[in-house]
Amino acid sequence: MAEEILLELPLPSLDDQRADEARIRQKLEEILEKEPKVPISTLRKAPRLLRDTNFKIKARVLFDGKDWILADILSPDDEKPFLGLGIDLGSTGVVIYLLDFHSGEVVKEHHFKNPQIPFGEDILNRLHFADKPEKRQKLHEVTISAFQQEIKKLLAGLPEDSIYYVALCGNTTMVHFLLNLETRYLYREPYIPAVNWIDTLHLKDLGLPGHSEGLLFVFPNRGAYFGGDLLAGILASGLHRQEEISILIDVGTNAEVVLGNQEFLLATAGAAGPALEGGILSCGMQAAPGAIERVRIDPQSLTIELKTIGGEKPKGICGSGVIDFLAQMFLAGLIDPRGKFVPEKLPERFQTIDGELAFILVPAEKSATGSPIYVTQGEVKSIVRSKGAMYTILTVLCQSVGLSFDDIAHFFIAGSFGNYIDPEMAITIGMLPDGPLERFVPLGNAAGKGTIVFLKNKNSFSELKNILESLTYLEMNVRPEFMQLLTGALFLPHTNLSLFPNVAQKLTAS
Amino acid sequence: MAEEILLELPLPSLDDQRADEARIRQKLEEILEKEPKVPISTLRKAPRLLRDTNFKIKARVLFDGKDWILADILSPDDEKPFLGLGIDLGSTGVVIYLLDFHSGEVVKEHHFKNPQIPFGEDILNRLHFADKPEKRQKLHEVTISAFQQEIKKLLAGLPEDSIYYVALCGNTTMVHFLLNLETRYLYREPYIPAVNWIDTLHLKDLGLPGHSEGLLFVFPNRGAYFGGDLLAGILASGLHRQEEISILIDVGTNAEVVLGNQEFLLATAGAAGPALEGGILSCGMQAAPGAIERVRIDPQSLTIELKTIGGEKPKGICGSGVIDFLAQMFLAGLIDPRGKFVPEKLPERFQTIDGELAFILVPAEKSATGSPIYVTQGEVKSIVRSKGAMYTILTVLCQSVGLSFDDIAHFFIAGSFGNYIDPEMAITIGMLPDGPLERFVPLGNAAGKGTIVFLKNKNSFSELKNILESLTYLEMNVRPEFMQLLTGALFLPHTNLSLFPNVAQKLTAS
Repeated sequence: MAEEILLELPLPSLDDQRADEARIRQKLEEILEKEPKVPISTLRKAPRLLRDTNFKIKARVLFDGKDWILADILSPDDEKPFLGLGIDLGSTGVVIYLLDFHSGEVVKEHHFKNPQIPFGEDILNRLHFADKPEKRQKLHEVTISAFQQEIKKLLAGLPEDSIYYVALCGNTTMVHFLLNLETRYLYREPYIPAVNWIDTLHLKDLGLPGHSEGLLFVFPNRGAYFGGDLLAGILASGLHRQEEISILIDVGTNAEVVLGNQEFLLATAGAAGPALEGGILSCGMQAAPGAIERVRIDPQSLTIELKTIGGEKPKGICGSGVIDFLAQMFLAGLIDPRGKFVPEKLPERFQTIDGELAFILVPAEKSATGSPIYVTQGEVKSIVRSKGAMYTILTVLCQSVGLSFDDIAHFFIAGSFGNYIDPEMAITIGMLPDGPLERFVPLGNAAGKGTIVFLKNKNSFSELKNILESLTYLEMNVRPEFMQLLTGALFLPHTNLSLFPNVAQKLTAS
Repeated sequence: MAEEILLELPLPSLDDQRADEARIRQKLEEILEKEPKVPISTLRKAPRLLRDTNFKIKARVLFDGKDWILADILSPDDEKPFLGLGIDLGSTGVVIYLLDFHSGEVVKEHHFKNPQIPFGEDILNRLHFADKPEKRQKLHEVTISAFQQEIKKLLAGLPEDSIYYVALCGNTTMVHFLLNLETRYLYREPYIPAVNWIDTLHLKDLGLPGHSEGLLFVFPNRGAYFGGDLLAGILASGLHRQEEISILIDVGTNAEVVLGNQEFLLATAGAAGPALEGGILSCGMQAAPGAIERVRIDPQSLTIELKTIGGEKPKGICGSGVIDFLAQMFLAGLIDPRGKFVPEKLPERFQTIDGELAFILVPAEKSATGSPIYVTQGEVKSIVRSKGAMYTILTVLCQSVGLSFDDIAHFFIAGSFGNYIDPEMAITIGMLPDGPLERFVPLGNAAGKGTIVFLKNKNSFSELKNILESLTYLEMNVRPEFMQLLTGALFLPHTNLSLFPNVAQKLTAS
């Protein structure tokens, strides 16, 4: 989306009286194979710069989806940085990646909390709040002002006008808040966003820091419940470029799943998320230092080994830890196939907390908080429901196009969840289908990565339009087979053990 | 360039969950046969407006040369005016035309003095002044601020945001001052402008009054000495659209002449202006009330009849009066073919003023100023030089493409000069070629008219690009035949009387 081009221009003479603008534009047209747009700020800079540099300059051009824009011209020895920002505007946390267009590398990243949280913990609260225009305006303003501050921090002294391009993704609501668009009709039937495709903006249109001609691309959405974050994830996964069929899984508040290849894309979403991410557990936490991310239980001795992020004293349990916990408890016989605790096998670890049976993973004296870290029977049930929903979503999705899991080349797993999850354990509990472990590819912050993929590739506009065109949305709620299939998936790993041959083998061995 | 389109959009439902933006954009695309751009201000307005109007709206779209922009959406019964401005930014005077896009009519015009005059009476003074960036900035600022005030006056209470499109032309220097572009290299060899083609701007980019998405088109130039005002004149004349070959003449500080048709355009300029416009004569003035615009001298009685603009007491003499004066004096034998006064024929009208022989057109007691209105012998000489130069420019231009004057279908004469000039008198003095008087078509303010033609026709962008492409510039100074031919044209009407058969006949008659 952004290129730096060295231009050596013919010198003006009585035989070549073209304006500075024409001289630059025509040379760039030869190189770009399209006539670029030349903004007035560049025209103002050109005459002196050209004569100071003897008509040898560096041109910085940006592609807005239709045209190249000559955003800046510089002396060839000017070392001013040439930067872009990829932003993942999550409803909880925001991540900004700093891209160096010269090297093509992300040189820094910066995380901060979504500044809208004080106005509503979850999205629905914020949507209610935003029903009044002046309150929606408020959400817009705190978001922009947080960006102004946080981008300054991220730059740490680098000049703001060295940011030439920002690509931002978020779910549909986040994007509406960012742009200060009406959200009343977004969450009321028939769920109509103000915008699907957002034409490239200027940074200054929103008051974002950056070059005066800097551009802002906000990822489009496919509807109220299919946001630009997932489109960015698809872009990052490359699903839409491959011949073989793969699946992209993004576990957040919802589980969002896309199946497809270069010819078709089939997407769906379902409530399979929160428990798996650890978010709603009493001792759940985000993947941060002190979070239990690995659990191993020796099936013989029942000794428990834990690993925390950063090796710190345990504070809580995060998504990958939750899946490990369930799998290891199951393999050790401490949880039965129906998801019920088997307290008699290790009574000293079980305790009744608030009237409910709980397994103590870390006793109070060994935890960083001074309280025990535990998982209750009810929580195990909801983890099992979530994993069952996830497996069923994957099953319905594949069946709807007549595929079996064996036809799937890769499972791309997005989110911090995807980074740390142990696929073997996810298979053990029957959340992901059995099969070779190499099929499971963690993507990290796929949405964030998608923004960087966007910035690095000028074909991204047409790729995104192709993705939107080839995308079909499957309404999971209305599929009758979903509830049917779910029943079998509420067991560990499944009522039909033949679907999980590797797990069956492991169970026989233990 | 601006259209209003009534849209009846399909209502959203669970089966049609397209965003408001997509609904509007797709409908407009069907009508415009090109996908329009949708700015954020329109996105912000859309959701409530669509639901208030039951999805029936008026869309106001603007063409920026590449794309249609959905600048505004309105309720179908909203009577908000839909206006454009055509501006002729002259170095002396500025004219603004108010165009109603609904009727396609110019509903008002407004004249004011160029606010740069206090910083330099003529262009060269202003160019010197503008050598320092902060002084150039000053010229830019006074110009913009004058526009802000004068447009307000012109609107006389109409809402500013009902201006959606402004088309402005001026000579190359005027446009550079307006846009605050470097002018140092414009008037120093090899005379290089900062810009030839100016991409369409937003009104807000320059701080001009109007709609927040309103556009500003500034006419391009073909070089330091071939400005957008002349291009606008060509557009207004239609020269470039006709099969027959015509000539456009614009007499200002320079005489600018364009010859051509739909296949080619040949332009030139030469010093033939000031004396003809009356500007440099001791008693010369602009065409304004009190200016002598008609002179008739009875060849027998030598009685002099004068007509002033507005019938007021005479104050001075304007361009058309000057030409009449010379023709009538010549026909009456008061000036000989070499341009010399013949004082003995009417001694009471001749007087020596500042040591030079002068003809008293209006004695002191009959003039509005209390001083006599006269023309000196030296002034007659320079009028003759100017008319000779004009005729020679026309001759060289035609000869250079192997044409004779008989091949010219029309002579379009631009400027207030063209409006009032009596072609018969101009032929009599040998300024314009002899032939049928119907060939001479006054265009009025061709530059200003060109801005209105631009606004009313979305093909203007391609027309202008075609004009620029088919335009060849003929450097008159370097043509050896110019000086040769000029000699013959310094007589009244010409040394070769056979070129002026109608004049010859008249001379025989008198």
